[in-house]
Amino acid sequence: MEKKLTVDVCLSPYLYPVYHKEDQIVVIIDILRATSAMCTAFEHGVEKMIPVATVEEAQEYKKQGFMVGAERNGIALDGFDFGNSPYSYMTEQIKGQTIVISTTNGTQAIEAARNAYQVVIGAFTNITALCNWLVLQNRNVILLCSGWKNRFNLEDSLFAGAVTERLLKTNLFRTGDAALAVASLFEKAQQHPATFLHNSSHAERLAAMGLKEDIKYCLSLDKTKMIPVLEGKYLVKLV
Amino acid sequence: MEKKLTVDVCLSPYLYPVYHKEDQIVVIIDILRATSAMCTAFEHGVEKMIPVATVEEAQEYKKQGFMVGAERNGIALDGFDFGNSPYSYMTEQIKGQTIVISTTNGTQAIEAARNAYQVVIGAFTNITALCNWLVLQNRNVILLCSGWKNRFNLEDSLFAGAVTERLLKTNLFRTGDAALAVASLFEKAQQHPATFLHNSSHAERLAAMGLKEDIKYCLSLDKTKMIPVLEGKYLVKLV
Repeated sequence: MEKKLTVDVCLSPYLYPVYHKEDQIVVIIDILRATSAMCTAFEHGVEKMIPVATVEEAQEYKKQGFMVGAERNGIALDGFDFGNSPYSYMTEQIKGQTIVISTTNGTQAIEAARNAYQVVIGAFTNITALCNWLVLQNRNVILLCSGWKNRFNLEDSLFAGAVTERLLKTNLFRTGDAALAVASLFEKAQQHPATFLHNSSHAERLAAMGLKEDIKYCLSLDKTKMIPVLEGKYLVKLV
Repeated sequence: MEKKLTVDVCLSPYLYPVYHKEDQIVVIIDILRATSAMCTAFEHGVEKMIPVATVEEAQEYKKQGFMVGAERNGIALDGFDFGNSPYSYMTEQIKGQTIVISTTNGTQAIEAARNAYQVVIGAFTNITALCNWLVLQNRNVILLCSGWKNRFNLEDSLFAGAVTERLLKTNLFRTGDAALAVASLFEKAQQHPATFLHNSSHAERLAAMGLKEDIKYCLSLDKTKMIPVLEGKYLVKLV
């Protein structure tokens, strides 16, 4: 029997050291909303993004004249150009630009996985492009859920389940236990993901902030074929 | 509306610091097989157990004349009295004794949560007694899955889902996202948990070792009303 590749899921950036191996592709997942927003930004012509973990680093770049997106606890921070709503990146203004971004969870996950063989950005909005690319790489895959302040969250796990299901269909991959669990979760939720996520703590948080349109957008499939990939300190588009 | 208690699930001992709060009850879960074996030992009359994280500590106690159980990677270690098969604790020999135990995952989880308000031992074999007791405590509950070497595993998550489902039925609890996810997993698997676990990495590992009877026993409900609880360095029976 041919040796299969492995797809597994790391359910928190805090857990990443336990899942790290030198030769894996890591997919960063922060569905509500950082990785969804990143995909949107590249679709709308951004040249590069610089993900940074702290607000201090974001401020430093702002002083240097960069356009900067900064969000904490679901709220765009004062003094910056963007938060992490995908809608705020749907503008001509970003075309050809380098944008710095710092968010509550997603940019922390990028930081955790920085030394992986390759780090790419995943979201429902680029899922088909992402999965088509992953199956061509002949490498083990770790789906890294950003979660909420290092805790498990439902929407990132659901997306990890969706990707796992697609990779399993190719018959090239076998799963770790976590991937098996989230695939089962996705199978159950897929008919009505929005309803399923109604009980998610963060969807609840965003809905209370009047961000239902953002949630709807972040759960919609294949808005772009862009796959942002980490190169040094930059996210660039995969070519 | 009355404020509800919270039940949530910590999916790895490595993640425990993220979930730690001073006033929570922590349930340690290592279905295959440490916590199942501990419940069995108390059912068969053991007086106290001393869970230790390292083999060195176990050896030290052995030299002092204690009966000691020690397991790594599913195998009972040479030079000790027991491994972590529940069947090995079904003996008159343990009655009234203090037994030291060190296992690959379960005793590490106890170590991680040692400073919690209260630490108790959970398994399918004591699930009803455990849940009945939890609903009377009026405290938030963290279900701590031991996993496999700090990775997520399926059987511990499934049990956490079973407990979550029972606590939710009382209408006293609300869930965190992880508890919601494992409850959904349990809902899907409950008709045939053994079939569901067939794909679990550790069940596969144990089955390959000829331990199918152990798996069957560890998935059976309510073999005991004992709830081992941590008091200082000892596990004793909850009274």
